[in-house]
Amino acid sequence: MCQCSTPFFHHPPQSSVSIHLPEWINSVVDWNTPLTNDSEKMALALLLAAENVKRQTGGPFATIIVHKKSGMLLSVGVNQVVPQTNSTLHGEVMAIMMGEQRLKQYSLSQTADEYELFTSCEPCAMCMGAILWSGVKRLICSATGDDARAIGFDEGPVFESSYDYIQNAGIEVVRKVLQEQGQAVLNQYIASGGTLYNGAAE
Amino acid sequence: MCQCSTPFFHHPPQSSVSIHLPEWINSVVDWNTPLTNDSEKMALALLLAAENVKRQTGGPFATIIVHKKSGMLLSVGVNQVVPQTNSTLHGEVMAIMMGEQRLKQYSLSQTADEYELFTSCEPCAMCMGAILWSGVKRLICSATGDDARAIGFDEGPVFESSYDYIQNAGIEVVRKVLQEQGQAVLNQYIASGGTLYNGAAE
Repeated sequence: MCQCSTPFFHHPPQSSVSIHLPEWINSVVDWNTPLTNDSEKMALALLLAAENVKRQTGGPFATIIVHKKSGMLLSVGVNQVVPQTNSTLHGEVMAIMMGEQRLKQYSLSQTADEYELFTSCEPCAMCMGAILWSGVKRLICSATGDDARAIGFDEGPVFESSYDYIQNAGIEVVRKVLQEQGQAVLNQYIASGGTLYNGAAE
Repeated sequence: MCQCSTPFFHHPPQSSVSIHLPEWINSVVDWNTPLTNDSEKMALALLLAAENVKRQTGGPFATIIVHKKSGMLLSVGVNQVVPQTNSTLHGEVMAIMMGEQRLKQYSLSQTADEYELFTSCEPCAMCMGAILWSGVKRLICSATGDDARAIGFDEGPVFESSYDYIQNAGIEVVRKVLQEQGQAVLNQYIASGGTLYNGAAE
């Protein structure tokens, strides 16, 4: 068989990929003022998700990671699956990568400092695993997995036993914080004609 | 509280991250010859995992993604968690990112072409989700999750029901292909003093 029929034969193999946040992030995020409570922290995650929808720079999901003791923001992430043609770039993964890169640590539990992760929607199967590997000590969620499924997103093989697992590993979990606002962002994405990018069905 | 006590206060926020395969990859991989069967494909994944251990460029895990019809290699990935201080860079995630970047697609099922993913060890919870989102149509594994746990790696919240889920989503799964060789790579990593980098326990 002539290999020219292979769809990528004339594109060289990829050996690197550069991942970036949208340019508007720093016009929305205040990096220098501590955040004081769970509602305030979640409100920032929801603002970022809503801006990502409004500016059409990705899916309706965002995450922030906060230094627990000081309330200072370590990193943020917004979904970048479609704009960067990369199915792994959920909001959680973006925030985890940026946070670890800032600290030059492969786990946020490598020092005594503790971090908490606020996400605009309960994590899919991939992000549930990623959150465990990130070393954060708290996971706080707004919209539920069912809310995401209701607008057509698959959450993958994530179960109630997944929450049990990460709690047993020492991560405190708080769910449904500002849930209605989280749902509203998901609904806005669908209302504005956003792409559903589940792996299997396209 | 003075924010100078925040561990990252004097490091600017991160807005991009560059991810790359180790330089030795192209001295080991032949990109131009089709692979003809599951054993031959898995042998390449295992070779990459073994080289990653031997050259001390990351954890004992590697993945390749193959165009099913032609047997041509789309992409490869080796674990890069420790060298790139990024807990998401498992072999599977690396190969998925590189493959999607080469095709400029956010899912490998966006066209009629079908792809298969060979991994040197059954996927952790994160990678199980990532494999679903990647759009590959087959998942082939060598060492088992239990083999990874036996040397001290946590696999996270991945269950038999996770396999059921992805099979129901249309992914064919084949496990324990060249399992003994897969186990041998894991054992070699521990014998050579490799780092265990689970999220929570450091």
